[in-house]
Amino acid sequence: MCAELRKDIISGGWIITNTKGKEEFFKSLEPGVRVKEKPCPFCSGNEKETPKEIYALRKPGTLPDQPGWSVRVFPSKEKALEIEKELERRGVGIYDVMNNVGAHELIIESPEHIKNLSDLPEEQIKKALLVYQKRIIDLKKDKRFRYAIVFKNQRPSSPFRLGHTHSQLVALPLTPESVKGELENAKSYYGEKERCVFCDVVREELEAGLRIVKENKSFLSYVPFAPRLPFETWILPKRHNADFTQEDDSTLFDFAAIMKVTLSKICKLLEDPPLNYMIHSIPYMRPKVGYWKTIHKDYHWHLEILPHIVKVEGFSWSSGFYIEPLSSEIMAELLRETKL
Amino acid sequence: MCAELRKDIISGGWIITNTKGKEEFFKSLEPGVRVKEKPCPFCSGNEKETPKEIYALRKPGTLPDQPGWSVRVFPSKEKALEIEKELERRGVGIYDVMNNVGAHELIIESPEHIKNLSDLPEEQIKKALLVYQKRIIDLKKDKRFRYAIVFKNQRPSSPFRLGHTHSQLVALPLTPESVKGELENAKSYYGEKERCVFCDVVREELEAGLRIVKENKSFLSYVPFAPRLPFETWILPKRHNADFTQEDDSTLFDFAAIMKVTLSKICKLLEDPPLNYMIHSIPYMRPKVGYWKTIHKDYHWHLEILPHIVKVEGFSWSSGFYIEPLSSEIMAELLRETKL
Repeated sequence: MCAELRKDIISGGWIITNTKGKEEFFKSLEPGVRVKEKPCPFCSGNEKETPKEIYALRKPGTLPDQPGWSVRVFPSKEKALEIEKELERRGVGIYDVMNNVGAHELIIESPEHIKNLSDLPEEQIKKALLVYQKRIIDLKKDKRFRYAIVFKNQRPSSPFRLGHTHSQLVALPLTPESVKGELENAKSYYGEKERCVFCDVVREELEAGLRIVKENKSFLSYVPFAPRLPFETWILPKRHNADFTQEDDSTLFDFAAIMKVTLSKICKLLEDPPLNYMIHSIPYMRPKVGYWKTIHKDYHWHLEILPHIVKVEGFSWSSGFYIEPLSSEIMAELLRETKL
Repeated sequence: MCAELRKDIISGGWIITNTKGKEEFFKSLEPGVRVKEKPCPFCSGNEKETPKEIYALRKPGTLPDQPGWSVRVFPSKEKALEIEKELERRGVGIYDVMNNVGAHELIIESPEHIKNLSDLPEEQIKKALLVYQKRIIDLKKDKRFRYAIVFKNQRPSSPFRLGHTHSQLVALPLTPESVKGELENAKSYYGEKERCVFCDVVREELEAGLRIVKENKSFLSYVPFAPRLPFETWILPKRHNADFTQEDDSTLFDFAAIMKVTLSKICKLLEDPPLNYMIHSIPYMRPKVGYWKTIHKDYHWHLEILPHIVKVEGFSWSSGFYIEPLSSEIMAELLRETKL
């Protein structure tokens, strides 16, 4: 029996199941093993230690899987998703199942051994963002995929793991629940008001000023009015655009600049916490929406940054009801006042 | 400024915000303090150490806040929710806010110092369940409340916390997101098929037999087809009933019996993991549903048990897309084979 995608009949959410054997799983629960003192496979010069590259931004004249790159992409060694499979939808009793078709890629954001994205120069962050775009666009050609998620898991320094800045891209034959929920709510807001809810949030936050962390020509970074986690921070483009891959070079530079400042402030104030971020953008395929016909007027791409400084209680986890110790206004103020 | 309930305009979910001061919050991030060698306030004989009791099952002739009880309820000392407040709904810019009105009660499930519910006799567990019912019914009289959640956070033994079995009840002026999602999906399933989706799950699971952990006359405990967490286990009544508080004495005894076995198996197999459970039942007030008019034919109360043996990755957390190392069938088999 091998891994597969399964849909929960009650919530409608999909999961990947059965990615590990029993022994492997119980072994993974044991305490971490110290990383051996061997060269980091993500560093320039050690390209042979990784799978073959899929894409890289490189100096003219340099060869694949050789030094000379500034951002490099290769497939993950994890085998939870497999690209070489038919998308086979089928029923098991009353339930829905699909093969575990998907792409899982690692995007190495610097040839040097630097841990946090925010320690890179803006120009280098912009290059990484450009590569996010290129990979999302490239995977769109594969008609089995509905969505490509770019996300980062950034961890504190530890002898148990490599610390070399990278993000991950996962392309799936479905749209993740959290994005689906946003799309549905945004659609019904638009249906009622003929306005994009995210555009309304941008206007409200700029006017109120209380929850802003940072602002530049094209972007706003702010603590949401009702965040799930302490110091959760979102970055929204000020101009309406549903599709991250459509942003041009100069807008990407502004995005890189606001990401650098926002992430640096979070890292400084909270002492390099574990955090993750995820780009929410329009799915590859979206059913035509509502009576106004123009697609995507209701949705707005954005970045969600989630620091993990508190353990989420089982209660919040299973109820979807969160308890925030501090108000958004206080958290935003603390971040604004953090000097870099 | 004091705590308040805030609605997220994008997801529609509510949170409680601003429950702590800045210093108190940052202090709470520091490592735990060893519990002092003082008597456990939840034990019989130490009633003076807790707030005054709201309700108790007691021997005839014994007085409140004195020994003689078998299950005892008193308000939590946490002040995130306050019962003595007007429910004031208001707008702040484009956002929705309410006062932090709510009840938060602790239900002590044994007069003796026993850590896990599953170590109590079935008869005693049944008494605790009866008290869950009584408190949910009593709080229904308060017209400000929409929902009462009963949940448990059970932690492994530790010198940092009291280990005396108890659950918590939270009554809120809103229905939590997770239950709302279930209600909506169950309603649309019923709208399409005129069958309760949970009843369909009971039939499917009994027929397939692959994911059953335990079964008795009135209940089924099983690992869902697409769980979010490893060894997530649900307990469903076999007979359709949307409302937990309507179950009679003998059914409650069957529920106690299957809870005891299921929780014991999870604790034994996973070596006393942190876990939580939550009862999902019908809200106090539910808008009339669909064309078939009969209320609650579509929903089915149940218990969700979530062991926390792996760290949920930020990716799953922010996408709603979970990666399960083992299949439900393997997890159910491991639990079935766990000898008590």
